[in-house]
Amino acid sequence: MLRGNTVHGMTVHFSSRVDISAPNPIAAAEQEAKRQGIALGKLNDSNPTRHGLAPELVPSIYSADPRGPKAARQALAAFLSADADALYLLSSTSEAYSWLVKLLCDPGDAVLAPKPGYPLIESICRLEGVETLEYQLQFDGSWFIDTAAIAELLESAEGTRIRALVVINPNNPTGSYVKPSEREALVRLCRDHGIALIADEVFFTYALEPFPGNARLAGESGVLTFALDGFSKMLAAPHAKVGWIQVSGPSEDVAEAQRRLDVIADDYLPMSDIIARDIPDLLDAAEAQSDKVRERVQGNLARLHALLDADPHGLVSVLRAEGGWNVLLRVPAVLDENELVLTLIDQHRLTGQPGYFFDMESNGYLAVSLLPEPAEFERNIQSVLDTVADMLR
Amino acid sequence: MLRGNTVHGMTVHFSSRVDISAPNPIAAAEQEAKRQGIALGKLNDSNPTRHGLAPELVPSIYSADPRGPKAARQALAAFLSADADALYLLSSTSEAYSWLVKLLCDPGDAVLAPKPGYPLIESICRLEGVETLEYQLQFDGSWFIDTAAIAELLESAEGTRIRALVVINPNNPTGSYVKPSEREALVRLCRDHGIALIADEVFFTYALEPFPGNARLAGESGVLTFALDGFSKMLAAPHAKVGWIQVSGPSEDVAEAQRRLDVIADDYLPMSDIIARDIPDLLDAAEAQSDKVRERVQGNLARLHALLDADPHGLVSVLRAEGGWNVLLRVPAVLDENELVLTLIDQHRLTGQPGYFFDMESNGYLAVSLLPEPAEFERNIQSVLDTVADMLR
Ligand SMILES: Cc1ncc(COP(=O)(O)O)c(C=O)c1O
Ligand SMILES: Cc1ncc(COP(=O)(O)O)c(C=O)c1O
Repeated sequence: MLRGNTVHGMTVHFSSRVDISAPNPIAAAEQEAKRQGIALGKLNDSNPTRHGLAPELVPSIYSADPRGPKAARQALAAFLSADADALYLLSSTSEAYSWLVKLLCDPGDAVLAPKPGYPLIESICRLEGVETLEYQLQFDGSWFIDTAAIAELLESAEGTRIRALVVINPNNPTGSYVKPSEREALVRLCRDHGIALIADEVFFTYALEPFPGNARLAGESGVLTFALDGFSKMLAAPHAKVGWIQVSGPSEDVAEAQRRLDVIADDYLPMSDIIARDIPDLLDAAEAQSDKVRERVQGNLARLHALLDADPHGLVSVLRAEGGWNVLLRVPAVLDENELVLTLIDQHRLTGQPGYFFDMESNGYLAVSLLPEPAEFERNIQSVLDTVADMLR
Repeated sequence: MLRGNTVHGMTVHFSSRVDISAPNPIAAAEQEAKRQGIALGKLNDSNPTRHGLAPELVPSIYSADPRGPKAARQALAAFLSADADALYLLSSTSEAYSWLVKLLCDPGDAVLAPKPGYPLIESICRLEGVETLEYQLQFDGSWFIDTAAIAELLESAEGTRIRALVVINPNNPTGSYVKPSEREALVRLCRDHGIALIADEVFFTYALEPFPGNARLAGESGVLTFALDGFSKMLAAPHAKVGWIQVSGPSEDVAEAQRRLDVIADDYLPMSDIIARDIPDLLDAAEAQSDKVRERVQGNLARLHALLDADPHGLVSVLRAEGGWNVLLRVPAVLDENELVLTLIDQHRLTGQPGYFFDMESNGYLAVSLLPEPAEFERNIQSVLDTVADMLR
């Protein structure tokens, strides 16, 4: 079921997992009635909330809207300055990745994702029977995407199975934003190869230094784009379980993608009315929450620099991070990363994630979160400095 | 990755989608610390709620428990008289089906499901790259499962790809419970063929007539069993988005299944603390809600019988339904099912689902929900009776 929809570049590929066969005569008549504004009764209506049976605690009438309850979606659309119909509300970006991989990839197909990067992507793709191929981010004082290497991969035999390119903007744990020139190259590559762009922008709002060229990929019109975001980072509320997909791109591609994504969304209908009724209030709190967290992470980054500057050993440095909640410490490459963390566990009751967890190309890195309260943060960093010095003594 | 775990019957098969490779040295040390009751700090803790940053609207500290927040799970366990550790809280039975298909089936494998049955199962399996094979329910005045036909299928070449058997107890739209003798045969067949049993029991509590032999499959110890239920039907709250899986069976199989299911659950973590804090109150309301809905559906069933008895044409009858919210009307088989519903739409602004939607073996059926308020229900039925009479005039 390779759909032939030529726009600008190559045919966009959708998977054969989604059943989009023509509606039966009854479904067609229902659609026609809807178009004419005729409300039909349903002999087989299985929605108890339409028949006075909803529990008092959840008194709403369930709309079963595949894209999520309308009022919540409209509140979100206003907040994002987006079109409510381009949004899909769901439980997490994990779920968003899962839906998009189903939409785009048959089993055996592949997704291209950044390395170092977010390890969950590989695990989620594997659950869909889909492989993750990696493209390397390079560091030369700041991080950049080697778009020429991506082009080469896409031209190769391996590249023919690739159905989507994931960018994380800013990436975790490198903290690097997608630069305007990189964006241009990536959009062109995706368009030329008929693959979709998945842009994970959960950390977008957390710039660690002024960065004039930064822009969200959400709303990109040059290629079929699925931008992911949610309350996990924006509101420091991973336990709220609110995420979304924003679809954009050439209109034909968007229409075809949404027709199929609606089928997937309709099978799961994940957004609860209990959560949805809190969404407008949560959005009202979003800016203050982001500000509070931004202050924390920026403050801890300054504390980190002060501690590193004051360290008499001078063995540890921090890679320049542009945004997000995490930074990468560089420790002497002679240290074994496992041994370093095992020593921290043993002597400081402190665990951590070394560079190899994120597929760093070389040895000697440690990811550090900028979230802890200042006293705890400083203790953590001091433990690392002391341990590194001890191990090299 | 075909695991060899021989218990009683055949090896239980799990998919290769779940990465269960041995923990790296750091993860192993973390597990060991946990076993010893030592709380470790986390250099890279990305959970903002542990650092005083949660929004006021969701003030809890996020536990990120793969099986769902402990307090909610314990409340549910008490309600079900189940073990809290055997439960996985999630958003819906749709999500439960999706997780279990991932757990049990590689792409290209198959699941065995009842026909007539719940059409969503096929669609959800297809999204996982997995095929649905069907076993026929037979009607001879009441519905029964042809377990000999299932045995034959499992012995065949086709049967080698089958990784799970779905039973719906009671089934929708046939309304038939799994009988004790059927249960015994199905458990033995699953055990002998190393396949898991998935028991969808969302309608269990809605018996339409006394039925002494009925029992939930939840807790079945003879074979690896995943029982599904949730608030959609039990509380008439499909918009709450609360479902669960209860795992049971031979202990070795259960341990291996949970080790893998924990990985899947950890990738998605779908249960929101906003919903979880309402779960105890919702459970308190469950019995009254089930009673209210049971009264409605039993009342409408009596109304239906009265209307059919009073109908001068005598063209329509109802198949005996043991439980659930739906019944099947039998209309003269000479009527075209599509034409009947299209006429209802045209003349009564009323749509419906004929038997072919549920893979009934022959023509002349119409599914009817027992949920509507009595006046609407009687109007609906009268519209069907009038339309059938008109069409045969
Ligand atoms: C790049 C990235 N995307 C998404 C997430 C998590 O989002 P969610 O909680 O919505 O699944 C994280 C969390 O660490 C992340 O690092
Ligand atoms: C057999 C069966 N299982 C499950 C469900 C729905 O459950 P959920 O809303 O939890 O996905 C239905 C709804 O009609 C059903 O008929």
